[in-house]
Amino acid sequence: MPTATSRKSTPATSGKAAQIITLLTDFGSRDAYAAIMKGVILGIAPDARIVDVCHEVTPYQIPEAGFVLCQSFRYFPKGTIHVVVVDPGVGSERRPLAVEALGHRFIGPDNGVFSMLFREAASASAGKLPYKAREITNRRLGLSTLSSTFHGRDLFAPAAAHLAAGAAFSTLGPLIDDALRQDWDLPIRTGKRFWQGAVFKADRFGNLITNFRCKDFPLATDAFELQAGLERIRTVRPHFAASAPGELFLLAGSSGYWEIAANQTSAAQMLGLTGGSPVELAILG
Amino acid sequence: MPTATSRKSTPATSGKAAQIITLLTDFGSRDAYAAIMKGVILGIAPDARIVDVCHEVTPYQIPEAGFVLCQSFRYFPKGTIHVVVVDPGVGSERRPLAVEALGHRFIGPDNGVFSMLFREAASASAGKLPYKAREITNRRLGLSTLSSTFHGRDLFAPAAAHLAAGAAFSTLGPLIDDALRQDWDLPIRTGKRFWQGAVFKADRFGNLITNFRCKDFPLATDAFELQAGLERIRTVRPHFAASAPGELFLLAGSSGYWEIAANQTSAAQMLGLTGGSPVELAILG
Amino acid sequence: MPTATSRKSTPATSGKAAQIITLLTDFGSRDAYAAIMKGVILGIAPDARIVDVCHEVTPYQIPEAGFVLCQSFRYFPKGTIHVVVVDPGVGSERRPLAVEALGHRFIGPDNGVFSMLFREAASASAGKLPYKAREITNRRLGLSTLSSTFHGRDLFAPAAAHLAAGAAFSTLGPLIDDALRQDWDLPIRTGKRFWQGAVFKADRFGNLITNFRCKDFPLATDAFELQAGLERIRTVRPHFAASAPGELFLLAGSSGYWEIAANQTSAAQMLGLTGGSPVELAILG
Repeated sequence: MPTATSRKSTPATSGKAAQIITLLTDFGSRDAYAAIMKGVILGIAPDARIVDVCHEVTPYQIPEAGFVLCQSFRYFPKGTIHVVVVDPGVGSERRPLAVEALGHRFIGPDNGVFSMLFREAASASAGKLPYKAREITNRRLGLSTLSSTFHGRDLFAPAAAHLAAGAAFSTLGPLIDDALRQDWDLPIRTGKRFWQGAVFKADRFGNLITNFRCKDFPLATDAFELQAGLERIRTVRPHFAASAPGELFLLAGSSGYWEIAANQTSAAQMLGLTGGSPVELAILG
Repeated sequence: MPTATSRKSTPATSGKAAQIITLLTDFGSRDAYAAIMKGVILGIAPDARIVDVCHEVTPYQIPEAGFVLCQSFRYFPKGTIHVVVVDPGVGSERRPLAVEALGHRFIGPDNGVFSMLFREAASASAGKLPYKAREITNRRLGLSTLSSTFHGRDLFAPAAAHLAAGAAFSTLGPLIDDALRQDWDLPIRTGKRFWQGAVFKADRFGNLITNFRCKDFPLATDAFELQAGLERIRTVRPHFAASAPGELFLLAGSSGYWEIAANQTSAAQMLGLTGGSPVELAILG
Repeated sequence: MPTATSRKSTPATSGKAAQIITLLTDFGSRDAYAAIMKGVILGIAPDARIVDVCHEVTPYQIPEAGFVLCQSFRYFPKGTIHVVVVDPGVGSERRPLAVEALGHRFIGPDNGVFSMLFREAASASAGKLPYKAREITNRRLGLSTLSSTFHGRDLFAPAAAHLAAGAAFSTLGPLIDDALRQDWDLPIRTGKRFWQGAVFKADRFGNLITNFRCKDFPLATDAFELQAGLERIRTVRPHFAASAPGELFLLAGSSGYWEIAANQTSAAQMLGLTGGSPVELAILG
């Protein structure tokens, strides 16, 4: 009988687990771009397990991609390679990047998409080097022709696949210490009891995932006021089934951030808010 | 040369086939929720084959999910584990369920989503016990923290993965005999020759899949009348190419149910109908 | 350390690579149709690697499917089996087809969807037989019941799976030499310096992929004029980052065709064009 312990040990399957590569892009599902990356990967690392994280990031929205990455990567086994291609600067001088952090590996453009990851790694590092970043300079690891518009295919997918096939991380290129970090994802304190926050994204159910982390903002009903659109929200509910139909409330979301939710309807539509919309938090009493 | 017989026997591949896990949810494709479930599964059962059945079930539409499950599961090999997460009552007291039926295994909430499956299993059982249902009570099989909003990640995916990794079905929890069954998917007889039915769902092509099963309702042109929106349909066509452009007709759908179709256009748009819309059948003569 | 040479040789993984099967359809993601094909494949070829190329081809748009196929197949390893199901004539007398070309294998309806592939194969053949086409007549390779509406499930998926499981290509059926070829994807010369072209498709970013191949039309800024909707475009940019926000320009697309693009906005929306829209090219000077 499985136990909490055995769950962490080797499962009842044989052989070495295949290397996992995840893909997170703004390519959408109407085009073959993600599939082309998979073809390239399988040509280099035939045994790699490829998992789509999401291809529906709002086009060019780097902060949203950074959030979705941090929301998801930790649920994959250590050693997983996460490829992120939200890359409005493709073809320009922005550097291609490879990162080791929190036991995972990451490949993507140096455009700030890893900012939130870097901060999480730093807060968990306890004095150790929180992460290693390398500029991918080894052109032998990419396709022979580098297009100016599709580095996901020509550079990022091949780099990830070579790692999956056994190439050492250090072969990708030199260590750098100036990878782009931005604070776009942090609430800003605007007064003793006031914080200016934002919506990371609206999910499919219309829940508005805010950038207020539950751990940092331990809210309770009637002890806060969240201004969202034209509404003021003062209620926390433990789950959807505990709310009245149509009621707006805060929910400790599954990603560890407060979400504005409404029972069986879309909070996003009720409030007219979406990814990037501002919200304002006041701590009462 | 392959034959009808050899097709059922061991294929020309080596080793033991990996355990297949399918996912059917209303999570959509804009978010990482389905991917997070995959990460959890691969952490427990690294060799599992994960197949997306559909993540675009209309949010909270349990009947639609039950239909899509029954439409698809039988085409997977026996022993496949099917995970269904359409779960508006997540966080409440609704039970998590594991089911063995028709040679397949199923994991999901006890909210009626397996009603159609139970009925199909009963009609195929010939006096034997048609299915076994267990309440998933073994918390050691889930993630260490159980959120109140995402049991797909914290409970259903881990349970399925432990099965895939070799855990016995009986370790999930005790047998129960009161799993929720509802009759939402059955036509209602309203007169000697009249039946009140409904549209299960509109597919991408605008075909309206009704809940009239071809086997139970052997319709032929001019021997019936189907009232759908403002139109009366009296024609059966064997396939799309046999109809005139724009003509509305009934088609014996690939799932075994009558579908309202229109040649190279959307019957759903022509009639203004969608999943849940009523249709009325009269048997003539 | 990996090199350009080692990249082409056996990667650092053990055993024989699993056979890859790609799926390209107009089934969308709202339905379980693609998943059902996967279930059928895994029942016959449990070790096959299945990769979704795209399921969002505009319903019934055979030319678009042909383009997406040619855009993507070459990035998969040689020997990959590509299944294409965009099949408005399903149930009629149109033949099911299996093709060997350019080191890959293809399965789909004989409705012109392989026209562009045939032309590419012919232009690369250098006098050799450019491709082999077979009518799939061996009914033992399909499911026992052939529906009139879902040959993807009943015929194409099983045929691909049997190939993946080791069946010889010749067992599918007899060679034919009259597979349907159409010239819908070629620009038409309308004058000494004028060409009538078309948009293959708008991608998610609103880039309009035209049917002017970069190799055949080596355009440079101010040496051409492309009439697209109400605008005349005379500029080529090397990549997005080199253009001004909102500027319309031509870009040598990653698929080898000229694309009408706009920096961080949708050219498709700016021009009101989509797949199938006409564009007119004039060579200046």
